[in-house]
Order: sequence, then C-alpha cells, then structure tokens
Amino acid sequence: MSDAQPPSSEERAGTQAAGKAAAKRTGRRPGGADTRGVVLDAARAEFAARGYEKASMRGIARVAGVDPALLHHYFGSKEQLFLAALDFPIDPATVAVVILDGDRAQVGERVARFVVALWEQPEVLNRLMAVVRTVVASEAIAELLRDFMVRELVGRLAEGLAVDRPELRVELVISQIIGLAMVRYIVAAEPIASVGPEELVSLLAPTIQRYLAG
Amino acid sequence: MSDAQPPSSEERAGTQAAGKAAAKRTGRRPGGADTRGVVLDAARAEFAARGYEKASMRGIARVAGVDPALLHHYFGSKEQLFLAALDFPIDPATVAVVILDGDRAQVGERVARFVVALWEQPEVLNRLMAVVRTVVASEAIAELLRDFMVRELVGRLAEGLAVDRPELRVELVISQIIGLAMVRYIVAAEPIASVGPEELVSLLAPTIQRYLAG
Repeated sequence: MSDAQPPSSEERAGTQAAGKAAAKRTGRRPGGADTRGVVLDAARAEFAARGYEKASMRGIARVAGVDPALLHHYFGSKEQLFLAALDFPIDPATVAVVILDGDRAQVGERVARFVVALWEQPEVLNRLMAVVRTVVASEAIAELLRDFMVRELVGRLAEGLAVDRPELRVELVISQIIGLAMVRYIVAAEPIASVGPEELVSLLAPTIQRYLAG
Repeated sequence: MSDAQPPSSEERAGTQAAGKAAAKRTGRRPGGADTRGVVLDAARAEFAARGYEKASMRGIARVAGVDPALLHHYFGSKEQLFLAALDFPIDPATVAVVILDGDRAQVGERVARFVVALWEQPEVLNRLMAVVRTVVASEAIAELLRDFMVRELVGRLAEGLAVDRPELRVELVISQIIGLAMVRYIVAAEPIASVGPEELVSLLAPTIQRYLAG
C-alpha cells in the first residue's frame, strides 16, 4: 500500500541517505585486493589491541607493511577504515547529516525513516543483525564499537544538536532502535515483525522526536 | 540522592512486585533435589522439542518418569515450570498485575519503576542479561521465549488493557526495555550506563506511557 504513494521529500531524503550509507561499502577503490585484505586484517588487529581512539592510521600502516599515504588513499580516514574493517553498515557521518540537517520538529520522523529504509535492504539488515550478535557475544567488540560510536556519532551530534545532555538523548534513540530491531528481527514477535515500513516509521518517530528534541 | 527520599506508594508497589518476581525462584519446594533436576531437564527437552504451547505437563512428567500430580505439586503450572526450567527471572503474571492494576495514567511510570527495580538487583540483572545473550545466540530459544511471552504475557494484557492493538503496544514496550538494557548493560555506553535509577525511570516512563496508553 505504502509503495503506491509518491514519496514525500522527507521520505526521499531518508531513503537516499540510507542508500548512500549502504552503498558506500561496495565502492571499489584503486589497489589490489590482496593489499586491501592485508590492510583490513591489520586494522582489525590494531583496533582490537588499542581500541578505536588509540589506534592510528600510521600504526595500522606499519602493521600492514604499507605506506601510510596508501592507507589514506584507500580509506580516506580512520573512521572509514574502521567501518570497512568491521563490515559496519552505517556511516556515522551520514547519520549525523540526517539528524542535524532539516527541521528540528521533524527529526524523529527523519531518523525513523532513515533507519527503516536501512532495514528494508536485506543485505544491510543482515549486516546490522550480525553487528548486534557480535556485540552481545563479545565484550571486546562491544567496547570497540561503543568507543567508535561515542567518538564519531555522539560527538558529532553533541555539538550540532544544541540541546541539553545530547549524549544521553542519542543513546536513548539508539536504545529504542536496537530494541525494536531485536524484537522485530531476532525474536521475530508478531505482530511487530509484520508491520509495514510506513507504520513502523509512524510508531518509531514520536519516540525519537521526544528523545532528541523533547 | 534518590535513596534518601521516602518511596511513594507507586515506588513501593513497583519495588515489591519486582522483589516478588525475583524472589519466586528461590522458594524451596518439597521433594528431593534430584527429582527437581530430572523434572527440569525433562521440561527443557520437551519445551525445546515441542515449543511452549504444545509441550504439556503430562508429557514432561512422562519424560521425567514422575507422576503428573507430583509435577503440579512441585511447580503449580506449565508457566511456572517453564520459568524454572529456563531460569527466567520475570513472571508474566506479576508483570501483568503491574501493568493492569492501578491508574492507567500512571502505567508508564509503574512499568518503568518495576523494570528498573529488577535491574537494580544484580542477580536478577545477570539472569536477564543471560536471557538476552541466549536469545541472540539461539534462534530456537528466541522462538521458545517468544511463544511463551506471546501466550502468557501479551495474551493476558490483550484482554485487560482495553486499547486497540494491545499486542503491538506491548511489543513496543518490550523493545524499548530490551534496547535500553543492551545499551546500558551490554554496550555499557556512557552517560546512560551511569544514570541513577530514579532518572532512568523518568526517561523510560513517558515512552512506555505513550506505547501502552497513547
């Protein structure tokens, strides 16, 4: 039913951003596949050993035996290298744009639409669920991912949101999104597992709106 | 700080209910420890093989090689046997009372207070987190627990809540509670990991209120 309706500009923005976040990973970069694999292995080892903040592009390049300039050329930034190394399907920079750009009175709907558009892509959903499973199974990965999200997402938003306690607000939003994903996709409880994307947006949006702007 | 304040009646109700739900399991029942262990093993096997609805007290008694009357004497009901077999720390009957008894305008605060009081008991919290980890790791356990919750909790509430789409509402509440537990206790993200119980109640209550009564 919802497919038959023309998308609103809010919808288009959310869907395009979700598509961009999801597509980013598939882009081929110059350089041999072997080098890429060696660099990603080195990155995983360094992030695991030092944590997100303390691991450096220079250190990862050293472990991989490549020039740091090559690393920057391949991956652009430590953030992008982290996303590639952990096969993490959401780019915090894109999420920050979704949240911060546009009318603050619509932020809940914008974020809900962005999240649901990601879930509607089976490959992205599978990777997201893999991340949830890994975080639950491994305290080390949970810590690594937490430090990454705090630094790259929560940090970005804390500056831009201009509300009190932005970190707490963002974590409440994340908690509702993770929990809904668990009940819908992992526990697969009905009727929530079968609710359509448009209705899911309408259920999720007011909660996110209150957390971010209430 | 919040400890110094005298508890309100809402608070006492939530805390007492949480204490009751948590204490239930430690009650010793008549009968040898061996028989109890054999029955719990049989129950786990039968629930796993047949699911919650189709497993029966009679069938579990047969597998355990005990009289069905003994099973009823030990555990009272299939529901209680399930809770004991899966070491599940929340009794749906108690949760239903917390939700349904009392002013509907305060249901969000009542549920939030009940949940936070459970989380404040380390042994209960550990068992809750063990359940979350098991559900994420095992599709079979996720399915079993889902069928149990749908039948015993969602079913009870659907009758009593007298709102439209009660199942969906209850699942949204569960999603926010599971997600908050994950971010606070498994990801352990700050500042949400360090927020005190009273503030946690005030953050959670309006979301639950809207889902159940909005």
